[in-house]
Amino acid sequence: MTKFGLYGKFTAADGKRDTLVEILVEASKAMEEINECELYVVSIDNTDPDSVYVYEVWSDEKAHQASLSLEATQTLIQHAKPIIAGTERISTISPIGGKGLKEG
Amino acid sequence: MTKFGLYGKFTAADGKRDTLVEILVEASKAMEEINECELYVVSIDNTDPDSVYVYEVWSDEKAHQASLSLEATQTLIQHAKPIIAGTERISTISPIGGKGLKEG
Repeated sequence: MTKFGLYGKFTAADGKRDTLVEILVEASKAMEEINECELYVVSIDNTDPDSVYVYEVWSDEKAHQASLSLEATQTLIQHAKPIIAGTERISTISPIGGKGLKEG
Repeated sequence: MTKFGLYGKFTAADGKRDTLVEILVEASKAMEEINECELYVVSIDNTDPDSVYVYEVWSDEKAHQASLSLEATQTLIQHAKPIIAGTERISTISPIGGKGLKEG
């Protein structure tokens, strides 16, 4: 199976970055229950007060696609949408290996 | 401690991407022994035959800095340098939380 990876940037509405980070980290807890989600890492950029970066790795693209219809994801979208001013897909990648990934 | 994250792209010399991936994945095995290295994920982009992406998370910036002088890193650099045509730092970030990160 080809692993499926995404790296993207959210631009938070003015002054809402930390709230957005909280919502995304909360959502990542729901991912703990989903085996096909290997990584869901939420980061900030200390030089940019409005950006939140998410790096995701899924067992394959189908698993990621299926996750979009999960209740946890729908809840995330509802909570986050009002405070998201922009989104940018930086990379769509195929993780091959390395520390932190499941083998195979 | 503020975690330290990097997301970067290597451009491999013509036809050398897979060799570069092998070298980087091999290097990531050495990272298994380094607690401060939480993630070191090597990926490719199916639409671009020459690019290799590395997503790294370290316990802090000092740990990452210290890793540059490790033998494993020096070996990686020696092996990889001849087949690297370019490098690009896409993001320098502070991972906050999420699936795949150590707590705290």
